[in-house]
Amino acid sequence: MAARLVPVSDPADPRLADYVRLRDVNLRKSLEAEHGLFIAEGEKVIRRAAGTGHPVRSFLTARRWVEPLADLLDAADAPVYVADDATVEAVAGFQVHRGALASMERLPLPPVEDVVAGARRILVLEDLVDHANVGSIFRCAAALGIDAVVLSPRCADPLYRRAIKVSMGAVFAVPYARMSGWRDGLGALRSAAGFTLLALTPDQSAVPLDKAPLGERVALMLGAEGDGLSSRWLAEADEPVCIPMSGAAMANGVDSLNVVAASAIACHALMRS
Amino acid sequence: MAARLVPVSDPADPRLADYVRLRDVNLRKSLEAEHGLFIAEGEKVIRRAAGTGHPVRSFLTARRWVEPLADLLDAADAPVYVADDATVEAVAGFQVHRGALASMERLPLPPVEDVVAGARRILVLEDLVDHANVGSIFRCAAALGIDAVVLSPRCADPLYRRAIKVSMGAVFAVPYARMSGWRDGLGALRSAAGFTLLALTPDQSAVPLDKAPLGERVALMLGAEGDGLSSRWLAEADEPVCIPMSGAAMANGVDSLNVVAASAIACHALMRS
Ligand SMILES: C[S@@+](CC[C@H](N)C(=O)[O-])C[C@H]1O[C@@H](n2cnc3c(N)ncnc32)[C@H](O)[C@@H]1O
Ligand SMILES: C[S@@+](CC[C@H](N)C(=O)[O-])C[C@H]1O[C@@H](n2cnc3c(N)ncnc32)[C@H](O)[C@@H]1O
Repeated sequence: MAARLVPVSDPADPRLADYVRLRDVNLRKSLEAEHGLFIAEGEKVIRRAAGTGHPVRSFLTARRWVEPLADLLDAADAPVYVADDATVEAVAGFQVHRGALASMERLPLPPVEDVVAGARRILVLEDLVDHANVGSIFRCAAALGIDAVVLSPRCADPLYRRAIKVSMGAVFAVPYARMSGWRDGLGALRSAAGFTLLALTPDQSAVPLDKAPLGERVALMLGAEGDGLSSRWLAEADEPVCIPMSGAAMANGVDSLNVVAASAIACHALMRS
Repeated sequence: MAARLVPVSDPADPRLADYVRLRDVNLRKSLEAEHGLFIAEGEKVIRRAAGTGHPVRSFLTARRWVEPLADLLDAADAPVYVADDATVEAVAGFQVHRGALASMERLPLPPVEDVVAGARRILVLEDLVDHANVGSIFRCAAALGIDAVVLSPRCADPLYRRAIKVSMGAVFAVPYARMSGWRDGLGALRSAAGFTLLALTPDQSAVPLDKAPLGERVALMLGAEGDGLSSRWLAEADEPVCIPMSGAAMANGVDSLNVVAASAIACHALMRS
């Protein structure tokens, strides 16, 4: 065994600072940005992240996991902090069930142009602030053959622990980039790469998905739960597109799909086109 | 104003017992079952629930909401407990942002046969224990014209607060019933109502959704995140059906869709058939 095992028992140990209060979204946002790190949870996700080139800063795990994870721990040149469950819980703020945590380095995100350069089908997400929605959409995107995802500046971070988890690791399978500006973001995408921009909207007077131009180089734009797509982005799109909904439901007050459901249906249609 | 306003300030007041610890799933399960109640959160959901005939046991709200909600509070013959935000938070265990909570009476669930009697398209959920998934699936079902939902005995409760919330109230728009037994549940469904049972599975050797027999009286069966459909239910189905996934994704370890995404795609296909 080549891994550097380091027993720890004090939850306030500064070497465990990467792992503190993993459910405190605000704290984590600033801490992770400042140190350029993210937390991978569980063997499968850690392997996936390491496989895409993210260096490991450290591991935090319990004694009983050291043996089963030996090859993973050995392969990384990083300290393995070994603690009992109570210590891990005291640091992380919840009971960790998935064997190991790893603190990993973020890599610089590529520019939007690079990510979409060879892509045929992409998703463009406007201000989706919910980590679970972002994670679920990455899982759909990966499973349904989307080549890249472009995030508006305010979208939730795909490398936040909950987004990674909900995505089942798909955030490491689909290339993504973040626009530097919201205002010019779409224009840049269109002129640089020649995508047809389809704005997905629950507005039932839009073009039904069946009739939408799902040909070469399509960008599907999706909006957030409360607001949907901004009027600016709707106006800049080539075509507003809707998934037809049941009239009875709409009379009952169910007037839109959840954004994950909408993206699943649209990605599926795109994959068949 | 006809509503009976009752100022309360002690979080331990026994009249507030219906509202305690709303995020404590285990406590809530037994408390709600024992008293035959559920909690509706926010004006829209309360109106929806009241509109489908659920009597209100009581309301819990803050003084500033009494005026805007006057017609709702007046219409119900139930006490309105008025408390400050800190008291509400101390009882419920979190900050309530949506104006009002209501404790409402459950109604007896109809038998499966009754719920599916006039239905053409139904969903059958096997052991989906996640409240958010169940809520999201009801929202899809409502929006995409599903006539009824049938739950296996172990499925999560659609009237649990989080399920209602995620469903955006659609749990009150789509009739549903719970099987009394898992073992005989499907057989009974088939013989009583003559549905074609389609088992949705990520197994890519199943019939692709495009080619599936989506004609008259179709039941789409969906399984849970970890286990998927049981082998018993798969074997009892008329046809296993898959949504084709990207080969590259599967090589990358993304080997299934989330059950909400799968149900959205399948319901959409059914609606177009
Ligand atoms: C919950 S919806 C937003 C609802 C918002 N009130 C609106 O009117 O846009 C979130 C996103 O899901 C997508 N969406 C939801 N229902 C849709 C439908 N029936 N057709 C196409 N897209 C839909 C859209 O991209 C939308 O911005
Ligand atoms: C996360 S999947 C379950 C994965 C499980 N390991 C299995 O092999 O079934 C949850 C449910 O979503 C549905 N599902 C997921 N991906 C699907 C696909 N590609 N085609 C059809 N149904 C799918 C199925 O009903 C499945 O039971």
